[in-house]
Amino acid sequence: MFESENKWEELVERVEDLVSRKRYAELRDLLLPLEAADIAWLCDELDERAPILVFRLLPKELAAEVFVELDSDEQELLIRGFSNSELKEVLDELYLDDAVDIVEEMPAGVVKRILQHADPETRKGINEILKYPDDSTGSIMTTEFVDLKETMTVADALKRIRRTGPDKETINVSYVIDDERRLIGLLTIRTLLLAEEDDVIGDIMERNFIAVQTLDDQETTARALSKYDFLALPVVDTENRLVGIVTVDDAMDVLQEEVTEDIEKMAAILPGDKPYLKTGVFETWKARTPWLMLLMLSATFTGIILTHFETSLMACAILTSFVPMLSGTGGNSGTQASTAVIRSLSLGEVRFSDLLQVVWKELRVALCCGICLAAANFVKMLLIDRWLLRNPTVTPQVALVVCATLICTVVCAKLVGCSLPLLAKKLGFDPAVMASPFITTIVDALSLLIYFQVASMVLGL
Amino acid sequence: MFESENKWEELVERVEDLVSRKRYAELRDLLLPLEAADIAWLCDELDERAPILVFRLLPKELAAEVFVELDSDEQELLIRGFSNSELKEVLDELYLDDAVDIVEEMPAGVVKRILQHADPETRKGINEILKYPDDSTGSIMTTEFVDLKETMTVADALKRIRRTGPDKETINVSYVIDDERRLIGLLTIRTLLLAEEDDVIGDIMERNFIAVQTLDDQETTARALSKYDFLALPVVDTENRLVGIVTVDDAMDVLQEEVTEDIEKMAAILPGDKPYLKTGVFETWKARTPWLMLLMLSATFTGIILTHFETSLMACAILTSFVPMLSGTGGNSGTQASTAVIRSLSLGEVRFSDLLQVVWKELRVALCCGICLAAANFVKMLLIDRWLLRNPTVTPQVALVVCATLICTVVCAKLVGCSLPLLAKKLGFDPAVMASPFITTIVDALSLLIYFQVASMVLGL
Repeated sequence: MFESENKWEELVERVEDLVSRKRYAELRDLLLPLEAADIAWLCDELDERAPILVFRLLPKELAAEVFVELDSDEQELLIRGFSNSELKEVLDELYLDDAVDIVEEMPAGVVKRILQHADPETRKGINEILKYPDDSTGSIMTTEFVDLKETMTVADALKRIRRTGPDKETINVSYVIDDERRLIGLLTIRTLLLAEEDDVIGDIMERNFIAVQTLDDQETTARALSKYDFLALPVVDTENRLVGIVTVDDAMDVLQEEVTEDIEKMAAILPGDKPYLKTGVFETWKARTPWLMLLMLSATFTGIILTHFETSLMACAILTSFVPMLSGTGGNSGTQASTAVIRSLSLGEVRFSDLLQVVWKELRVALCCGICLAAANFVKMLLIDRWLLRNPTVTPQVALVVCATLICTVVCAKLVGCSLPLLAKKLGFDPAVMASPFITTIVDALSLLIYFQVASMVLGL
Repeated sequence: MFESENKWEELVERVEDLVSRKRYAELRDLLLPLEAADIAWLCDELDERAPILVFRLLPKELAAEVFVELDSDEQELLIRGFSNSELKEVLDELYLDDAVDIVEEMPAGVVKRILQHADPETRKGINEILKYPDDSTGSIMTTEFVDLKETMTVADALKRIRRTGPDKETINVSYVIDDERRLIGLLTIRTLLLAEEDDVIGDIMERNFIAVQTLDDQETTARALSKYDFLALPVVDTENRLVGIVTVDDAMDVLQEEVTEDIEKMAAILPGDKPYLKTGVFETWKARTPWLMLLMLSATFTGIILTHFETSLMACAILTSFVPMLSGTGGNSGTQASTAVIRSLSLGEVRFSDLLQVVWKELRVALCCGICLAAANFVKMLLIDRWLLRNPTVTPQVALVVCATLICTVVCAKLVGCSLPLLAKKLGFDPAVMASPFITTIVDALSLLIYFQVASMVLGL
């Protein structure tokens, strides 16, 4: 399956050829064995009219699966192209959570048309899920799960699963509720199959289970699914009534989105929700300029510090040439620490209460790194700059100033880098924002202050 | 379940209290309702002797689950503390892929003891999986899956699942093989349950399926599981014989590790495999120093450029104070572009063949960002630096030099930032290494060259 890009390019060409020659039967045979996600990818590579054609060629069920995998722009085009009966057919095939995802991306006119043609049950479900906030667990759950009663036998339960199963998102786990729809237990299909026909559900169900609430953060829920290796998590309301489930495939999507968001924030980009090549120039510009602007303006302080020490710099001009190295190394050291801490925070490995332990660790790492870098730099300055490049202004004293500054800068950078994300988290901000660019700007200013301080002490400027 | 940290701290205290007062029955009742991952976390928080105690209190099955969730250091301690019969019991309860994960982390002496006490079947399975390279799909698969024959009826299949199911990692998907063990189809438990008892497997199985090979990269396999929303993927050897399956929980772990590795590489850290607080100072130092050293030495070029233009700087000293702002903004612009491209590459949204499209997009974004930043900076320099701070050396000409440089720097930075990761990928290197620190170092030197070029043109230095 993981053949070279060539295979995919060939496939696109063949499909284009078949479309242009109107060989629809052959096209259908070519597409049928493919996975829905791959057909959606193909539609994306083809021209605008292709999706509706592909869509009409495929059997209803596969067509609906492909529809779910398409980009929202293409979904909108398709819906606008659908006849009313086609729209109704697709909606009938969709799982509820997929239908909600689609509705969320559509303009109001299209939403109205969708809701008009959905059956009353689906319409109710969509409206139910739509009322939960964007990042909440409620917004990613589905209400199509198998529910059982405690008093049923295994035979009853299997019969119920056989009857209602085709419409459920998963039958791998069933949920046992009482008369008030409160969740009291759960049951995997494995337990059901391995039990005797006349065992009673209440006796074999698992009563120790983990449930999440509709308003829990969707990332926390997804992390829990991953941590406990579950295939689904039940979602309850504040009165412990079962309202839905979150399945592992949706959790994986959430985790992937959240990681992308974190990485974007760490690179001073405002997070977006579209793939890179689908985001327009203007949108990309809007996501990138605010942080650039803020960081540019805050770099002014570094400039002011430099101006302030202008006379010292004039007296010993060679000092200037080591500024980029010092601020670069400081920035990189800080980035290493902040990145390590931010990632550990988001994986739940580190908490604010670990602050002292983190600082103590980074202090020791910083000293080791700093001394090591300083030693290398000292040798380099005397051997290469002074001796090989014959620059007499690189005296041992200057080398001493640069190397002492290097150690102090690395230590400061690592301490700032490891503590700011923890503080941000404690104060309720997103730690990812305290990453590389922000730390770099602070460390730039710090390293200059240290540099001129050390220089004035050693060289008496 | 997502209560505040306090709840967990209270739990640790209660467990410590019960252990010290030897109230083992109460301790057992306290632990039983918890998830294995949470008990493992508790063991980690308690002192060294606690795990073996907790382990002996729990029922065999739960104890084995907890064992799997422990850190390898604790697993080693436990194995060393186990009697031979305890070791055998645990090994019997483990799924094969978990047993392999454990064996991979243990020193040779412990491995020998494990293999001695595993039953022959398990021992064979462990040795089988151990022979696959570290990052391959074979190394994360399990060989415990349900296999069926084409000629079986649904009733036969269900009987087989009931009989062999308890030892299988998952029964949600069964795999149909021919007499040479070649994979010819698969079947979800849903299909089985919804079929008639006397349907023949060959008629209802899915013949269009995706299989991966033992030597495929584990990240590619995990991404495929996520992309196609599968619960498991079959793994075949070069002759298409079914040798194992990869389940979604293992895929999630792989994806999480790979993301952490990417993030670490992007922050110039050599990737490690232990959680932040579990990594020793020396190990952290070893992971961080190489890149710092390399980047420090390459920053020398920037220093050489500065020295080269020393006389120009002397003639117009105010220019120096804008160097940090220019190199900072350049670095941040480059980081934004490289990060966006690296993430898209790892999500499979962008390929090398998109190079021109990416460059064209970044060029336009860079011009928008650059012009916007330059305009803001021009106003700021004249209003604040010249007028408010009364610095007469900030002339409109100087502002022009700085702002023109800013635009050129942003454009260069974005172009370098977006193209280097794509080139790295094409050449078979890891694109994540082409991230922030590396780009910053290149852009630093570039921005200085542009700066002095523009300055000498406009100011005639």
